Amino acid sequence: MSRACIFCRIVSDDAPRSAVFEDDEVLAFMDILPVNPGHLLIVPKQHVVRLDDLPESTGARVMRVAMRLARAIRDGELAPDGINLFLADGEAAGQEVFHSHLHVIPRFRRDGFHLRVDYKPSPDRTLLDQHAEIIRAALSG
Amino acid sequence: MSRACIFCRIVSDDAPRSAVFEDDEVLAFMDILPVNPGHLLIVPKQHVVRLDDLPESTGARVMRVAMRLARAIRDGELAPDGINLFLADGEAAGQEVFHSHLHVIPRFRRDGFHLRVDYKPSPDRTLLDQHAEIIRAALSG
Repeated sequence: MSRACIFCRIVSDDAPRSAVFEDDEVLAFMDILPVNPGHLLIVPKQHVVRLDDLPESTGARVMRVAMRLARAIRDGELAPDGINLFLADGEAAGQEVFHSHLHVIPRFRRDGFHLRVDYKPSPDRTLLDQHAEIIRAALSG
Repeated sequence: MSRACIFCRIVSDDAPRSAVFEDDEVLAFMDILPVNPGHLLIVPKQHVVRLDDLPESTGARVMRVAMRLARAIRDGELAPDGINLFLADGEAAGQEVFHSHLHVIPRFRRDGFHLRVDYKPSPDRTLLDQHAEIIRAALSG
């Protein structure tokens, strides 16, 4: 728990929140700057800055809760056309609050939310195999 | 398993793939249209179109594998500055292959990948509480 962290303060109910779900490991609450109505965040209760610091079992719990909440968002009267799950790990990835969190974002047709990608030239199979080999080596290393 | 599904064909090794990780439930392989080098996809081996159709335990497994692969990508020589996890569920959410999959995207500073959001006026706490209540009602319903 970090006093300086807004998500820690929300977890300890020391800052305003609109909570949706809570168990012993995670809390889900409404994003105050939603992409669309119903946009929520799932955070581990433990103060964890980066994905690397999150116990794998807590990450798995976050995903289970995300799937339940995605279904609840779809089943409820917000009735979106789709859902995005999004996690930004590190400033270069767009992380703005340094307490790891997963976004659950209801999506509607023509809602103005886009990924903007500057695609590089499409790699050939040899290059893809090289990248796979680099990752496999680090995985087993 | 669907013959018409490219990810099912990749899972059954009936289409080209650069695989990174495989267990009894999931397969991870390089995206052929990467946002950045090292961009990979994790798919359940079972043909599942939407997140709603995915067993929760398989979703949890996908997240555990994503965390391991994110660490391997960071630890390896691709050495990105950050990582995004991204899942698009439904066409309105940007889903293009209708076999549910999670993107693991290495990020580099100034890599040209952005979320473009048309933010609506920021909701007040009363509205956030209403949205939370709608979702909680569907969750317990």
